[in-house]
Amino acid sequence: MRVAVLGTGLMGAPMARNLARAGHTVTAWNRSFDKAESLSDAGVIPVRSIQAAVTAAEVVVVMLSSGPVCDEVLFGAPDPAVEALEPGSTVILMSSIPVETARSQAEKLAKSGVRYLDAPVSGGEKGAIEATLTIMVGGEANDLERVEPVLRLLGRVTHVGPVGCGQLAKLANQLIVGVTIGAVAEALALVAAGGGDAAAVRSALLGGFADSTILRQHGERMLKGDFKPGAKSTVQLKDLRTVLDLASTLALHLPLADTASAQFERLCQSGGGDLDHAAVYTLVLPDTADTAARP
Amino acid sequence: MRVAVLGTGLMGAPMARNLARAGHTVTAWNRSFDKAESLSDAGVIPVRSIQAAVTAAEVVVVMLSSGPVCDEVLFGAPDPAVEALEPGSTVILMSSIPVETARSQAEKLAKSGVRYLDAPVSGGEKGAIEATLTIMVGGEANDLERVEPVLRLLGRVTHVGPVGCGQLAKLANQLIVGVTIGAVAEALALVAAGGGDAAAVRSALLGGFADSTILRQHGERMLKGDFKPGAKSTVQLKDLRTVLDLASTLALHLPLADTASAQFERLCQSGGGDLDHAAVYTLVLPDTADTAARP
Repeated sequence: MRVAVLGTGLMGAPMARNLARAGHTVTAWNRSFDKAESLSDAGVIPVRSIQAAVTAAEVVVVMLSSGPVCDEVLFGAPDPAVEALEPGSTVILMSSIPVETARSQAEKLAKSGVRYLDAPVSGGEKGAIEATLTIMVGGEANDLERVEPVLRLLGRVTHVGPVGCGQLAKLANQLIVGVTIGAVAEALALVAAGGGDAAAVRSALLGGFADSTILRQHGERMLKGDFKPGAKSTVQLKDLRTVLDLASTLALHLPLADTASAQFERLCQSGGGDLDHAAVYTLVLPDTADTAARP
Repeated sequence: MRVAVLGTGLMGAPMARNLARAGHTVTAWNRSFDKAESLSDAGVIPVRSIQAAVTAAEVVVVMLSSGPVCDEVLFGAPDPAVEALEPGSTVILMSSIPVETARSQAEKLAKSGVRYLDAPVSGGEKGAIEATLTIMVGGEANDLERVEPVLRLLGRVTHVGPVGCGQLAKLANQLIVGVTIGAVAEALALVAAGGGDAAAVRSALLGGFADSTILRQHGERMLKGDFKPGAKSTVQLKDLRTVLDLASTLALHLPLADTASAQFERLCQSGGGDLDHAAVYTLVLPDTADTAARP
């Protein structure tokens, strides 16, 4: 297949490599051309204009930094993708963007006969390189079926509902991650404050009901005081705010998401915004406990 | 070794069987004698008095329903274990009781030359039967070393600090479990309310950062509307209150535990106290969403 990749940053670059390695004809565009050009050793064809990249592409993977940037690349002057997209081709929007932005992009592209899936990912740069991303896809089942062999080259694909639902799933992910980090932080702080061995407790809980990826990875970061991101607290806060904004339009009350959001806001306001989200531990850790974990 | 088991209910009975099966001489006492008697097929020796059970025992396993019941069996008239316990023997208190109760029991027994470990468990009846309990031990390392071969017959043993810290670890477990259940409930409710496929989202998130035992087991219960306990919401609420009481004596502020406690209080007050703690999902699920999950 002919595949265009728009955006070859930390995530898009290894994804483009994986697609080219599998034998697809991959064109790549990036705002800074050198990042696209550096992929030519992998057989990726770097191009200088968005329209040149998407012309004749059957699949267009978009992996840019935000909803507005995606909107600009798809629809903005002077080089809007929409004017060069082939009718019948499929845009796979893999950035994390608001649910409403995804729905609106799908509607606009449908007018040009272009199919649309929103397919945000979790798993980070490591997942992109190793092609083990979790890919949450919103859109028509038929549309997914046509491009699923391409997506499977990047990770594990799950269809989670109509357009926008990929973003909804990603928000669910971010909600669980943010609250669970907070829960693990409070539990380890309780043990430390009570005079117990928090590292031993973390080990004891592995394999039981309290076990989670967060206890394993972020729990260890908390105990080591290793808050080099990973995922920044500012991003966790932004995601929780997006969750709460959406919940409010759905008349949903989500008290734990609300509480976790307030905690990450405190962390960001006290200078911890660029630290890993596991640094929320430093907020609950009492002054009298072992201070090894403080940044 | 000679081992006495005080309390042969859902948890104590299979534990006594596992100890006898391994070749230890096991005496068993239970308030309702028939429950102890029913273990004689496994080679356990049922006895009618607490003091008869513990006489000459090197290890005394206590698995009763609460701190006050443990206190009564150890120290209460007319049949207090303390008067028959051998100096140099070890009481392993495996019930979930307040940290302060554990410390006070240890002090009292020390006056009679009796060693003490607090070793609460997680893993439930299934873990007790299969000898796969998570056993969190507080006490002196030397004291644990002497009895560890016995404890290993019941599950995985971790030493987590001095006396009381086993209970502290159990509270950490209950905190993480209660908050994570709430997080999964909010995330799945968000997806359902937004028109996504909550079951597909749960599947998509397995293996990623949002993965947890709770997402796997309680997430599935939520989606099936299966709230047969498991662990009752009243017990989850009691445990979260114990966490918050302890936190307050330690001058710790635990906002997520606080929020989760309020949620379980709402659930219990609205008649859900005897449902599994996963039923907290019914509180956040909007009226307009798929109602399959309602009890």
